Amino acid sequence: MRPLITLITDFGLREYFVGAMKGAMFSIHLGVEIVDISHQVNSHDILEAAFTLRCAYSAFPARTIHVVVVDPGVGSKRRAIIVATSNYYFVGPDNGVFSLIYEAEAVERVVSITAEHYFRKPLSNTFHGRDIFGPVAAWISKGIEIGKFGEDISDYVKLTPPKVKKMAEGAVQGMVLHIDKFGNLITNIAPCDLAGVKSAVKFAVAGREVPGLVRNYSEGAPGQPFALVGSAGFYEISALKDSAAKLLQAHRGDEVMVRWS
Amino acid sequence: MRPLITLITDFGLREYFVGAMKGAMFSIHLGVEIVDISHQVNSHDILEAAFTLRCAYSAFPARTIHVVVVDPGVGSKRRAIIVATSNYYFVGPDNGVFSLIYEAEAVERVVSITAEHYFRKPLSNTFHGRDIFGPVAAWISKGIEIGKFGEDISDYVKLTPPKVKKMAEGAVQGMVLHIDKFGNLITNIAPCDLAGVKSAVKFAVAGREVPGLVRNYSEGAPGQPFALVGSAGFYEISALKDSAAKLLQAHRGDEVMVRWS
Amino acid sequence: MRPLITLITDFGLREYFVGAMKGAMFSIHLGVEIVDISHQVNSHDILEAAFTLRCAYSAFPARTIHVVVVDPGVGSKRRAIIVATSNYYFVGPDNGVFSLIYEAEAVERVVSITAEHYFRKPLSNTFHGRDIFGPVAAWISKGIEIGKFGEDISDYVKLTPPKVKKMAEGAVQGMVLHIDKFGNLITNIAPCDLAGVKSAVKFAVAGREVPGLVRNYSEGAPGQPFALVGSAGFYEISALKDSAAKLLQAHRGDEVMVRWS
Repeated sequence: MRPLITLITDFGLREYFVGAMKGAMFSIHLGVEIVDISHQVNSHDILEAAFTLRCAYSAFPARTIHVVVVDPGVGSKRRAIIVATSNYYFVGPDNGVFSLIYEAEAVERVVSITAEHYFRKPLSNTFHGRDIFGPVAAWISKGIEIGKFGEDISDYVKLTPPKVKKMAEGAVQGMVLHIDKFGNLITNIAPCDLAGVKSAVKFAVAGREVPGLVRNYSEGAPGQPFALVGSAGFYEISALKDSAAKLLQAHRGDEVMVRWS
Repeated sequence: MRPLITLITDFGLREYFVGAMKGAMFSIHLGVEIVDISHQVNSHDILEAAFTLRCAYSAFPARTIHVVVVDPGVGSKRRAIIVATSNYYFVGPDNGVFSLIYEAEAVERVVSITAEHYFRKPLSNTFHGRDIFGPVAAWISKGIEIGKFGEDISDYVKLTPPKVKKMAEGAVQGMVLHIDKFGNLITNIAPCDLAGVKSAVKFAVAGREVPGLVRNYSEGAPGQPFALVGSAGFYEISALKDSAAKLLQAHRGDEVMVRWS
Repeated sequence: MRPLITLITDFGLREYFVGAMKGAMFSIHLGVEIVDISHQVNSHDILEAAFTLRCAYSAFPARTIHVVVVDPGVGSKRRAIIVATSNYYFVGPDNGVFSLIYEAEAVERVVSITAEHYFRKPLSNTFHGRDIFGPVAAWISKGIEIGKFGEDISDYVKLTPPKVKKMAEGAVQGMVLHIDKFGNLITNIAPCDLAGVKSAVKFAVAGREVPGLVRNYSEGAPGQPFALVGSAGFYEISALKDSAAKLLQAHRGDEVMVRWS
């Protein structure tokens, strides 16, 4: 069967970067299938890349190789790593981009990539997507055992994603993690954060109240933002055929409060 | 041979949506080839999606499965459907997004999708591209007969696309359907609307006259908009290496008059 | 093995153009693998397309077919051509879009495409990507010998890309060729233009001095632009997790001076 490799980068789609990276991979393994997840992560935004990966990775079949190249430290001494879980491989810089994977999956091994004979020659100082991460993923897809790429490590970089705080009096505090193309506000609050709450809950974004909690978009009233559980498994603030971000003048990072009585 | 599935959505390319939808499809059928037509339809714009599909679908080989997910009613009671014509399958919400297909193709069957065992589990209320439309297309590509997905229906939603009006005195009235990336104004007027007209015709957009009708872009004069038959089979207003939309300050929906004597 | 075709166009990703072009290709050869390099070249910008191709093409395996459709003269008498080098095929309009390939590769043959039975029918006057260039590439990928498409020519169009000037007193003058998604300024000056220079060099963009020359991004100091050799093999002016274009208020086409003592 043909193996799958997915890509998440901040390269954009206008430049030659994504094409050259795919060319380098096909030069190693022509039989691979390469799937773009996003190349429009904000430049250097490690947490946005981590969030995108977290939302998408588990929809893919087992043994898929997920490559993430959001890599402001390219050419420095930051390590390149392979993360193996029971279901997937992940390849990218050791800058915390896999932090949400470490929380969600049982990590079996993390390998620091040092075996230079798997790199593209000549190795550039600025484009490790084409020269290291892409080629290593292509070699894994050909069946090279990941121990061949370097030594196992345990001190890989883990960023602490923003946590939901339980407040004393019937409330939790979270934040707006992401605003999507439709203007939906994706929060870091999940249904499990409200486990045991039996009464009705109320949301507020940066102090502005959100009228109701609904089951799907079409239950909302026109011009009125509402909360619902989104496809990524978190509460989202949305609006019926409208942008909740505009209606609430909300921004990424805004405080989200959920209260009940 | 590997089956083809095409995608038209309003998901944008920055979010994880397209990647997750493809992952769900490859999880069902790894051998399928997925081709992006556009993910940048205006949010919730059913007519734009219908137009994009109308222009692209017939370039694909017979038996291609075309999936459209522009779905403002996701999670409501709007139906999910499969349309079978003699040449193609179409999968998407029953909100009129296939209206131009119903006019262009001989429809053989329309099936309302209700067989939940073909859906992704757990089924979300907000992301049926990943959970219903993508998986159903993948199962069709594996050879599942479309009657297995639900009952045939005949009351599917047909939107009335804007029609060309024949005016009394040597004229037809249409509109600007779409403005493309180059600033070309694509109208809803086709050569068949001028069948039998022997004299020279004149175009006007929102009252502003368009000098001439030419056979191709390079026959135009610099800085002067002109009309020609575009690649979608409709008259377009264009300009030589320039944006006709800017030159004419034209907008989508503007009136287009064609007059002859 | 499945053959590879790459695409560089100015079609954008919102329109139906790229999808229809791929449909036309798959209709001829379903077994081909089509890889997008960029569809976001500035409209009608032949030099930008040439630059994108120059940076990406050599990452692909031998026998890859590279198609470029930036074609302001579509429908005019400009020729359609196939360029064969020892490693690759190139298909596109004869408008200079392959000028940088003629400099970089040993050209074996250039064929003017005239054999209309390989074109899509009906042939449009405005969309030769779908009707000529895509289909010809698909037929080449099926093994059709390139002499079958028309006669060899030697008077193909070569644009003169902007050259680096050697100045009298320890200096070379170049320009900003391109500004990428990260705000890096890619110049047309390569290390070979400074061959033999032993002392430290200084860069200036449009008269504004660039502090230093470094080996990789992370050696730069915050808020200070610097020069380095980029992944395309040219000197680039960059900034640490910042946009050099913004810091220097630089534009495409700006003069770049390199001086040494």
